[in-house]
Amino acid sequence: MEKLEMLYEGKAKRIYATDEPGVFWVEYKDDATAFNGEKRATIMGKGELNNRITSIFFRMLKEKGIENHFIKELSPTEQLVKKVEIVPLEVVTRNVAAGSLAKRLGMEEGTVLPQPVVEFYYKDDALGDPLVNDSHIDVLGIASAEERARLREMALAVNEVLVSYMKERKVTLVDFKLEFGRLEDGTLLLADEISPDTCRFWDADTNEKLDKDRFRRDLGNVEDAYKEILKRIGGETHV
Amino acid sequence: MEKLEMLYEGKAKRIYATDEPGVFWVEYKDDATAFNGEKRATIMGKGELNNRITSIFFRMLKEKGIENHFIKELSPTEQLVKKVEIVPLEVVTRNVAAGSLAKRLGMEEGTVLPQPVVEFYYKDDALGDPLVNDSHIDVLGIASAEERARLREMALAVNEVLVSYMKERKVTLVDFKLEFGRLEDGTLLLADEISPDTCRFWDADTNEKLDKDRFRRDLGNVEDAYKEILKRIGGETHV
Ligand SMILES: Nc1ncnc2c1ncn2[C@@H]1O[C@H](COP(=O)(O)OP(=O)(O)O)[C@@H](O)[C@H]1O
Ligand SMILES: Nc1ncnc2c1ncn2[C@@H]1O[C@H](COP(=O)(O)OP(=O)(O)O)[C@@H](O)[C@H]1O
Ligand SMILES: [Mg+2]
Ligand SMILES: [Mg+2]
Repeated sequence: MEKLEMLYEGKAKRIYATDEPGVFWVEYKDDATAFNGEKRATIMGKGELNNRITSIFFRMLKEKGIENHFIKELSPTEQLVKKVEIVPLEVVTRNVAAGSLAKRLGMEEGTVLPQPVVEFYYKDDALGDPLVNDSHIDVLGIASAEERARLREMALAVNEVLVSYMKERKVTLVDFKLEFGRLEDGTLLLADEISPDTCRFWDADTNEKLDKDRFRRDLGNVEDAYKEILKRIGGETHV
Repeated sequence: MEKLEMLYEGKAKRIYATDEPGVFWVEYKDDATAFNGEKRATIMGKGELNNRITSIFFRMLKEKGIENHFIKELSPTEQLVKKVEIVPLEVVTRNVAAGSLAKRLGMEEGTVLPQPVVEFYYKDDALGDPLVNDSHIDVLGIASAEERARLREMALAVNEVLVSYMKERKVTLVDFKLEFGRLEDGTLLLADEISPDTCRFWDADTNEKLDKDRFRRDLGNVEDAYKEILKRIGGETHV
């Protein structure tokens, strides 16, 4: 397997072509951004931690019957994935009110939701990733009604698996963001990453935040929190 | 019919009880507000213009088979309506990109939408009337899935009638906000008002704004624009 040219660089990862058709080489970076890129920093070891955490989650999800883009880990910061055409929607699933949902609906952060909430955000940095409804998505023409139903279904399936997996490890899964893509034949596949950058994880006993909110809200010990998540899910790291 | 105590005063109208059960007495005010109450003014004659315009629209919609709360005009600024329990959702229907939609989806104002967009906003001044999706409405518990389907259906029906009615009068119906309420038996009924305060009306030839955007954007001649709309739909006023 040969690593070829870089295809795009995002805020957290670089994607490279390979000599194998349909396979991408992903490199996790130490860059941290928040508030649509307004806040930036480098968090030593984050790339390695998120590469490891994502690999563990995606392997576990596969075992539980949830197909995804993960192929294998290559190095502490690199992995191989199946190439997909990313659907430009951030699919957010929530179990507990926090962040923008708490603000939008006027709920106290920490309120357990009576049922999971699923939201679609249009993945567009220039627009600030706005919340969109089905009618907006129809006008944007980025996902059909059938695809939306499937995205919701898959997000709720991931939620069910992840909630119980993390609960056994004394972590509350507050909310998380997923990205999906289309294979050549149009099948939707879970892609991107699942890490403390894309999830809200709270210690089940103390409600201590073990995720990117430590960076967003200047709570300190960002790296330690990510390490704690890796430890709870049984991973090791060289960081 | 006797006017009894005031039940509530909103930003644009006062609602009074009457001695007839199930009937409310509405008084239209000259107050104008925008940006969630941050901008305020009094526009002489607005109460009379909106009372007349709403009456004409609601009578016409009834004739076209769209049931609504309107009973009759009482005076230049007053009307009788059927009492409903308002569903706290602002149901917005759009034919042309403008305002928050243009911003949300990064479309130029004036872009004709390929199909009407329907949006639900949670009617809560303290929260700034946020956009909500079906999942949010489920958590808020303010309208069932069946009611949401009916709200969309009714909004699109009103849109169809209003678009063609205004087109004959050389006005483009860009977008508008409706409110619905429940009768005692749970039936959903179109309520509130339809006026230049709640619609975007553009002159079909010049695209001149004939609505509340004249106030929001300090374009001047607010009252003249409202009068022009009344004139086009065949009403008269004492203002
Ligand atoms: N399997 C995949 N195939 C193609 N693109 C992918 C895949 N998984 C993730 N991506 C995309 O890789 C890009 C880089 O990731 P990231 O740095 O997280 O970007 P962003 O700045 O958009 O968050 C993103 O556009 C993401 O959607
Ligand atoms: N038929 C009706 N029965 C009960 N309430 C109504 C009816 N029609 C409108 N309302 C309500 O009357 C109130 C006053 O109207 P308005 O001044 O426009 O209020 P707002 O400040 O919420 O825009 C609003 O809460 C509106 O929803
Ligand atoms: Mg990303
Ligand atoms: Mg109103």
